[in-house]
Amino acid sequence: MSNQPILSKNWKKKIHEVIYGTHTPAGKLFDIILLIVIVYSIVIVMLESVPWVDKNYHTFLNISEWTITILFTLEYILRVISIRKPKTYIFSFFGAVDLLSTLPKYLSLLFIGSQYLTAFRILRLLRIFRILKLARFVGASNNLARALNASKTKILVFVFFIIIVSILLGTVMYIIEGPEHGFNSIPHSVYWTIVTLTTVGYGDISPETPLGQLLASLIMIIGYGIIAVPTGIVSAEYTSEMNKKDTTDRGRSCSTCSTEVLRNDAKFCRICGSKLNDA
Amino acid sequence: MSNQPILSKNWKKKIHEVIYGTHTPAGKLFDIILLIVIVYSIVIVMLESVPWVDKNYHTFLNISEWTITILFTLEYILRVISIRKPKTYIFSFFGAVDLLSTLPKYLSLLFIGSQYLTAFRILRLLRIFRILKLARFVGASNNLARALNASKTKILVFVFFIIIVSILLGTVMYIIEGPEHGFNSIPHSVYWTIVTLTTVGYGDISPETPLGQLLASLIMIIGYGIIAVPTGIVSAEYTSEMNKKDTTDRGRSCSTCSTEVLRNDAKFCRICGSKLNDA
Amino acid sequence: MSNQPILSKNWKKKIHEVIYGTHTPAGKLFDIILLIVIVYSIVIVMLESVPWVDKNYHTFLNISEWTITILFTLEYILRVISIRKPKTYIFSFFGAVDLLSTLPKYLSLLFIGSQYLTAFRILRLLRIFRILKLARFVGASNNLARALNASKTKILVFVFFIIIVSILLGTVMYIIEGPEHGFNSIPHSVYWTIVTLTTVGYGDISPETPLGQLLASLIMIIGYGIIAVPTGIVSAEYTSEMNKKDTTDRGRSCSTCSTEVLRNDAKFCRICGSKLNDA
Amino acid sequence: MSNQPILSKNWKKKIHEVIYGTHTPAGKLFDIILLIVIVYSIVIVMLESVPWVDKNYHTFLNISEWTITILFTLEYILRVISIRKPKTYIFSFFGAVDLLSTLPKYLSLLFIGSQYLTAFRILRLLRIFRILKLARFVGASNNLARALNASKTKILVFVFFIIIVSILLGTVMYIIEGPEHGFNSIPHSVYWTIVTLTTVGYGDISPETPLGQLLASLIMIIGYGIIAVPTGIVSAEYTSEMNKKDTTDRGRSCSTCSTEVLRNDAKFCRICGSKLNDA
Repeated sequence: MSNQPILSKNWKKKIHEVIYGTHTPAGKLFDIILLIVIVYSIVIVMLESVPWVDKNYHTFLNISEWTITILFTLEYILRVISIRKPKTYIFSFFGAVDLLSTLPKYLSLLFIGSQYLTAFRILRLLRIFRILKLARFVGASNNLARALNASKTKILVFVFFIIIVSILLGTVMYIIEGPEHGFNSIPHSVYWTIVTLTTVGYGDISPETPLGQLLASLIMIIGYGIIAVPTGIVSAEYTSEMNKKDTTDRGRSCSTCSTEVLRNDAKFCRICGSKLNDA
Repeated sequence: MSNQPILSKNWKKKIHEVIYGTHTPAGKLFDIILLIVIVYSIVIVMLESVPWVDKNYHTFLNISEWTITILFTLEYILRVISIRKPKTYIFSFFGAVDLLSTLPKYLSLLFIGSQYLTAFRILRLLRIFRILKLARFVGASNNLARALNASKTKILVFVFFIIIVSILLGTVMYIIEGPEHGFNSIPHSVYWTIVTLTTVGYGDISPETPLGQLLASLIMIIGYGIIAVPTGIVSAEYTSEMNKKDTTDRGRSCSTCSTEVLRNDAKFCRICGSKLNDA
Repeated sequence: MSNQPILSKNWKKKIHEVIYGTHTPAGKLFDIILLIVIVYSIVIVMLESVPWVDKNYHTFLNISEWTITILFTLEYILRVISIRKPKTYIFSFFGAVDLLSTLPKYLSLLFIGSQYLTAFRILRLLRIFRILKLARFVGASNNLARALNASKTKILVFVFFIIIVSILLGTVMYIIEGPEHGFNSIPHSVYWTIVTLTTVGYGDISPETPLGQLLASLIMIIGYGIIAVPTGIVSAEYTSEMNKKDTTDRGRSCSTCSTEVLRNDAKFCRICGSKLNDA
Repeated sequence: MSNQPILSKNWKKKIHEVIYGTHTPAGKLFDIILLIVIVYSIVIVMLESVPWVDKNYHTFLNISEWTITILFTLEYILRVISIRKPKTYIFSFFGAVDLLSTLPKYLSLLFIGSQYLTAFRILRLLRIFRILKLARFVGASNNLARALNASKTKILVFVFFIIIVSILLGTVMYIIEGPEHGFNSIPHSVYWTIVTLTTVGYGDISPETPLGQLLASLIMIIGYGIIAVPTGIVSAEYTSEMNKKDTTDRGRSCSTCSTEVLRNDAKFCRICGSKLNDA
């Protein structure tokens, strides 16, 4: 009888290994199956929203969705059981995502036909990030992650600048074109300015007065020009990150103090001054 | 009674510290409150222009606007009083912005319903730049500012080139498509060319003849290709600025063999091995 | 009679030289003629699809197409005969392309008016890649090829990320705008999100509710900002490739002090002054 | 009387100095006046094409145009007379532009109402390039010019690749969507593909079948991704050009053979081996 808790512990440990781990074959297999089920479930959610598909294949979609929901519920329960501190998991970002993407189907039994609720299931997509974060190939873009991180503040300042410019130019366009040409209000006009500045250009509203078209041309050229800014930032930061890595890669080190040697032409260690070996 | 001017001076000094300064807690608080009031006021201006919002909440918007206007008027008066040389402030760029963004509401009493005038209040947005210029986080993008400054002339030449190409191609499109396909005049056709070249593409006018579509395709590919130019300029200048900063940061050399010291942590010259002075 | 196989072998060898080779004048001439015939054949395929051209020049187009088809069939037979291992060629990518782009005309005799089949002939375009791959000028962009190869994984991760973001934002837009504003289903809404995020912006569907336009503005700014990512990747990788090439080109070092020689024109070591060997 | 030819020569020389030269004050003034006249003349050409402007100000525009035409004719004659080898000028690119942009007004006397002919006058824009080429500020972008030159071949290969991809994808879209959804013919469909791939997106044609929208999404993402290629090329080439310049700027040279010293840590000249002075 003293074996009971140990056995239970082992049982939990194994489940933990399969569900949370990625190093065992079972863990890898679990991740791959989970990935497939998630992608399948996303396809189901998307197809359900298409009127004619839903009409013809409603039963099939419904059964699929129930199956998936039950599988995900089981998985959620196993995750809660097998982890040491269930609270940490439940209140973590991915814990919330796991729960939120499972609930809608159950709630649809109570609130009939709640389209908005079912759309919540699309949150399952976020679970893909957890699975892939653990995978090898994202790790390959570490440099990129660092570069994007370094660019973050500057790009935020840039976005902030874009928004201010859009509000100013949008107001001017509202004054020039006015409601009679589709620029109904300042917010609507600012929306148009962003559509133009980012070179999207729907054409649902477009300037009709010569002055409006002149200013629009100016906005387009500005938008066309300033896209260079975020691009330049990321390029430069990334180049800089790659150079840092290159330096580290050179790989000679001092035999006395084991300081990394950063220059190919160094003859003496820059930290302890002892003579270096040739590379 | 001799204390009176000194007290007045102190009183002015304190106001100056709060309004213009950013280092005291009161100065910081003032900036944050001002920022919130400005953003709130911008939202009011934008909402006022939306017909149904203005219809239902006219009184609320009007009271909000009057409150803000009076607050800004008070602030303007305090700024003029507390500064040593009021003229310099009044005739400065931000002084003019402060005045211009306050006046419209008063003028609206004289000229009833002047939509164009009220839009002037959007200029308050520019005040955000003054507040944030003093803030810490813009200072972080000094490199970027230098890079953009260095790129300025080249980007202007580029914009100038775009405009000339647009006029030439716009004229050719006017000849090919003509008024019967919406290319009413050369300026209108040039407008279309800019819409296309910058990849905005409203679709309010689009070529209908095969030859016109062929030339349009060419213009698009040109536009798609030459966006590389401003981006390349900013990237390269920014990379260069980042390298320069690195160089400036090092600036130490060996006193024995005058080799440039490339690393901040170097203690011995990497060429002759003699001890280096501290940076 | 013992000469027979040798003669036949020589005959095959010569054909092989002309068809597969590019170093002999005949081989070059063959490539140029093939290039012209392919381009001509593409123009024919495209013109055939234009109703009024097909109406007026049907006979001419038909004869052209039959001539080209017979020429390509002959070429295909010669390619099969003259190569040592015909199977390798037949089941290779370009072997399949050669066959598939020849068959449609013959099949059109059996299945009358099969528009979709004839479009297969456009695959001939792919043959241009084979011809040009051998040509000199593509070799010039070897650095570029390496840089693109190095960027591949990161750009795939990026594209994957774009798709996930598009599905999430598309679903949100479907909930906000709904079928009454043209967002008929989630897949349709995701399509719209991609149209917006990539700054294409057809305008066949566009948001009409204020909230929808706000989110759309956000999507546009995101799209405008993250285009910096693939561009930054390629820029940085390419810069890095160019630097590597520079390093590879130098690869000489001083035999006395083993300092790396950085310039091709160096005759003496810049560190110890001893004479260098020729590169 | 022997002075006559010399005087005439001086007269020609002076005119040459004013018209072709830019170093004398008169030469600079001439360029500035010419620039203003050209810009004015372009504005006239553009306004003439606007129906209501032409209706109301026809006489003014006509007189302006005749004045400009006569001025340009005089300038052309003076250019021919004052140059040593008139033929070289007449048959040069800018010589042809000068002539072609002057003729239309005269020809309009013979061929009444030839709209197409008058549009030729827009070629005067090209003359701006000659004037500005001589000016100081374009010289500042020499690095850029070299970078663009180095990128030329690669960008051409890229454009060529874009065109092939567009033809292939355009044909596939023609098969999927067909004439019933606006994809009338393969060339029309290729036009649509270019509109989409370059992220222009007019929306005059847009896919309506689910499969078509799926492929369109793919084309957009491809287009969004491969814009990174030309940008990366120009960025990298420009960075490389700037580094080259930086190297040249370092400015130490060998006192024995006056070879430029390219490395700060060099102690001996890499060409003649003599000891270098400290920087």
